[in-house]
Amino acid sequence: MTRIYAGTINEEHIGQTILLKGWVQKRRDLGGLIFIDLRDRSGVVQVVFNPDESAEALQIADTIRSEYVVEISGKVVAREASTVNSLMKTGKIEVVASSVEILNKSKNPPFMIKDDTDVAEDLRLKYRYLDLRRPGLQETIKLRHQTTQAIRNFLNNDGFLEMETPILTKSTPEGARDYLVPSRVHPGEFYALPQSPQLFKQLIMMSGFEKYYQIARCFRDEDLRADRQPEFTQIDIETSFQTSDDIMAMTEKMMQYVMKEVKGIDITLPFPRMSYDDAMNRFGSDKPDTRFGMEIIDASPIFKTSEFKVFKGAIENGGSVRLLNVKGEAANFSRKDIDKLAEYVDVYGAKGLAWLKAEGAELKGPIAKFLTEEEKAQLIIEVEVTDGDLLLFVADKNQVVFDSLGALRLKLGKELDLIDQSIYNFLWVTDWPLLEYDEELDRFFAAHHPFTSPVEGELDKLLTEPENVRANAYDLVLNGYELGGGSIRIYQKETQEKMFQVLGFSEEEAQEQFGFLMEALEYGAPPHGGIALGLDRIIMLLAGRSNLRDTILFPKTASASDLLTEAPGGVAEEQLKELSIQLRKQKD
Amino acid sequence: MTRIYAGTINEEHIGQTILLKGWVQKRRDLGGLIFIDLRDRSGVVQVVFNPDESAEALQIADTIRSEYVVEISGKVVAREASTVNSLMKTGKIEVVASSVEILNKSKNPPFMIKDDTDVAEDLRLKYRYLDLRRPGLQETIKLRHQTTQAIRNFLNNDGFLEMETPILTKSTPEGARDYLVPSRVHPGEFYALPQSPQLFKQLIMMSGFEKYYQIARCFRDEDLRADRQPEFTQIDIETSFQTSDDIMAMTEKMMQYVMKEVKGIDITLPFPRMSYDDAMNRFGSDKPDTRFGMEIIDASPIFKTSEFKVFKGAIENGGSVRLLNVKGEAANFSRKDIDKLAEYVDVYGAKGLAWLKAEGAELKGPIAKFLTEEEKAQLIIEVEVTDGDLLLFVADKNQVVFDSLGALRLKLGKELDLIDQSIYNFLWVTDWPLLEYDEELDRFFAAHHPFTSPVEGELDKLLTEPENVRANAYDLVLNGYELGGGSIRIYQKETQEKMFQVLGFSEEEAQEQFGFLMEALEYGAPPHGGIALGLDRIIMLLAGRSNLRDTILFPKTASASDLLTEAPGGVAEEQLKELSIQLRKQKD
Repeated sequence: MTRIYAGTINEEHIGQTILLKGWVQKRRDLGGLIFIDLRDRSGVVQVVFNPDESAEALQIADTIRSEYVVEISGKVVAREASTVNSLMKTGKIEVVASSVEILNKSKNPPFMIKDDTDVAEDLRLKYRYLDLRRPGLQETIKLRHQTTQAIRNFLNNDGFLEMETPILTKSTPEGARDYLVPSRVHPGEFYALPQSPQLFKQLIMMSGFEKYYQIARCFRDEDLRADRQPEFTQIDIETSFQTSDDIMAMTEKMMQYVMKEVKGIDITLPFPRMSYDDAMNRFGSDKPDTRFGMEIIDASPIFKTSEFKVFKGAIENGGSVRLLNVKGEAANFSRKDIDKLAEYVDVYGAKGLAWLKAEGAELKGPIAKFLTEEEKAQLIIEVEVTDGDLLLFVADKNQVVFDSLGALRLKLGKELDLIDQSIYNFLWVTDWPLLEYDEELDRFFAAHHPFTSPVEGELDKLLTEPENVRANAYDLVLNGYELGGGSIRIYQKETQEKMFQVLGFSEEEAQEQFGFLMEALEYGAPPHGGIALGLDRIIMLLAGRSNLRDTILFPKTASASDLLTEAPGGVAEEQLKELSIQLRKQKD
Repeated sequence: MTRIYAGTINEEHIGQTILLKGWVQKRRDLGGLIFIDLRDRSGVVQVVFNPDESAEALQIADTIRSEYVVEISGKVVAREASTVNSLMKTGKIEVVASSVEILNKSKNPPFMIKDDTDVAEDLRLKYRYLDLRRPGLQETIKLRHQTTQAIRNFLNNDGFLEMETPILTKSTPEGARDYLVPSRVHPGEFYALPQSPQLFKQLIMMSGFEKYYQIARCFRDEDLRADRQPEFTQIDIETSFQTSDDIMAMTEKMMQYVMKEVKGIDITLPFPRMSYDDAMNRFGSDKPDTRFGMEIIDASPIFKTSEFKVFKGAIENGGSVRLLNVKGEAANFSRKDIDKLAEYVDVYGAKGLAWLKAEGAELKGPIAKFLTEEEKAQLIIEVEVTDGDLLLFVADKNQVVFDSLGALRLKLGKELDLIDQSIYNFLWVTDWPLLEYDEELDRFFAAHHPFTSPVEGELDKLLTEPENVRANAYDLVLNGYELGGGSIRIYQKETQEKMFQVLGFSEEEAQEQFGFLMEALEYGAPPHGGIALGLDRIIMLLAGRSNLRDTILFPKTASASDLLTEAPGGVAEEQLKELSIQLRKQKD
């Protein structure tokens, strides 16, 4: 008798004697009978124990509790019409048990194994093996498997080779913090866990493989936000001899394939493209959620010569006056409601949230009296104001205006239910600045990483006006989340040298940290570029989840702890000795 | 004009104008023409520059050197019969260049990019990106990709889910040394890199997924032998509700599929099985190379009451007298040759190598005079001695006898060309001892790992006669190499407790190190087991290579260094401070 998966049993099995193995989801006693829901990886089926079929099995069933592991043989029968459960995939049948064996017992679990749970996440993470038995998490982990295989299928068919790059690598000072690994064989020296396989994938191109990918584990010892993990997985891709258009087109086809394979959804190509400047101007974000409108409107031209000091001052200081037109919502927002929105944008640095309401053809509100009729009339025309609109203004430095109106737009979009949750809006954001100036440290940093190539024709400006050089880079955005990004890399030594120079590296520093790369560029490095996409994030969006931890089998908490195995933990002094390190005294 | 891969051009392309991108393998000037071999990931094609086609291209070609990266357009033409190169896949055609662009230059590489190289490995590893351009290594890395995908295809089709387990895990004291990772957020605490995902894959079974696999990176900070790497990759598999027979059968089918897909070779199932004891007795090895005979013969029964003290003494001390019958080779081994073999087995602890030669019906040699006619007659019969045979004896403790004759058998097998290199002999070694006794430390160690289940029925002996308990474990051997192994795991808490007890763990120690596992066993852990196979080793054998480093893209040396990126390396004091560690002073 071969085993059948519980969730796959249907009316075609009626009359068959089958073998089941799995977990007891729940047990009910009813009129001398015992019912158990038996769960395995495929789903759940109802098993009935009755004294006519087997008194012995009934007796054993009486000792069974939730989460016991059992092996049951029995006959599939149709349920009576009155007991058919249409909510259950296997609800038209049940299994009448002829024998049962308890393979392992279970204590009463600390929480019910079911999807709608309000159990604290910390408890669920400590008992992750119970948490993962919940059908929803089982589905998400399966979806992760399916997505990964779909990506592989696509890339394999496109001539890519999957390759493994080292986890024990060299520490490089740029960017986020490295996790370090002391070396026993080389006292005082350390490996670093890779923040990404960036340099290795470039070296793979210099090795002549032309098409590389890896589902790569990456590590960042950063202060963790809700949506970051110390170790995460990225779809890492690199190609030689291809343009950014080639790489974007390939990535689009890959995502189209994944959406079709995993979600059964057709996605239209090509994905729209938007420049970084447009994204900021229209959505106040470099990863705009384009599933709804309510774009940010620049009212600076109207208020350039305004008598209203708040507006005029912002513009004169190099900033701007911008607004959201919350169509038809004026009546739904009290002064108190708007005060709360002002508090919300305060976090983003906005010192206030000016507002106007359209009543008929008039604009009313506290700032109305500071504006001329001409300004109001212009507003009504240019912002296409109609009766009942609510206008929300931020006047400040551009970064503050973008951050606060961008966040406010998302908040209102959600609260006013403007977002169609069934849509998948992919978007490329292009024309990024190559460098970012850090005023505090008085130096430029690479906006992406120091190996990103400038767009063609702008190389000449690298040393003269670095702030105006754009990167040959592209980010892929889905529904307001950054899935990842890529770029064409620098492949000529002179350009890479210039780049390090702009970033303030001395020749010695460049040589010490990236000497091997500089040397590799001298031996026939091909033009190359690629992309890296966050797998965890993609799974989160495809699974319709809001928490990255739900997409990872054994995730860590916001303080980078594994609550199940209790990692990190103390180690023996002997181990540290072998590694030639010791703990630092607290006062250091 | 779309690009065509160099190695794919054939007579069907004659007359077409094509675009090539790649590296200059070599350049030759001949009678006013320039010939270059253009190499890309697919192979090589010959390009001709002649002044009639394009004087400009010829002029540029004149500046081209080896390993330059170029883009060439030209027309495919048939070669004249006299210049056809039958050794070259594209040898019937050549490309007449109409234009050429130099995409990047190259300095003169430190070694030629060709397969038959005698360049020191250290230099090749420092310039790994050049080393990897060699066709042989390109092929091996491709074979690794193909093998990995074949394994995935097989397991995906068999209902397995690929899952990712953490790299930042908890340190466990058993077995090889852990690589440690200091935690910034938790001063004084450390993560460990996993030596294998053993506990996580068991937890995955306890999570109800039933069929897991992962192409998993593992880490061991061991003293490195030629065939070990600090990070290596294993095919990691775990299933619930399956017997060892099920798992072995599944593994066999997987290997059969891989051999067919990757090598086009049909492998017969099932693989033969041999007990650990048989493997030792017959081949002196727990990973016997069964591609040739010359098995070890136990002559102890013959010499139990011998007058020859060396033989008798070994037997009386609990050891044995065993031999190899090197058929028909007596005349080819001088006394001096045999002395060399004696030196060889000396490394394995054998204090000497006794020998006899069969001349006609007589056995001759230095020990002949110590043996009775009866003993010699018995030898001739039982060892099936015929004229010209060479008998090589080791008499010692069994372990020494096995180690030395096992190694000698392999050495002679190779030197006498007894091994058919085209055969792939898979073999299961089963019935392993569960525990190994360490005399020095006066305690038992798990022969496999502490989670391995005893064979059914032997659990009772675990506390009373642990040395006689066999493990429900199986190793897969191919041509004398261990590919990996697996076992049925302990899934009941009481058994796991007993196991820790036998291993000398106090209850507190067991709790501190494996408390989460003990607890998980209490909540409905299913019966489970699995296997782990070394991917690097499999690739090495399939690629016909003798060096694991050739199967790994960026391998480390025997001292765990990456010669390309110079990892490990020094880090800034500031980084250590953040991690609450410092270097230990040398005298500690």
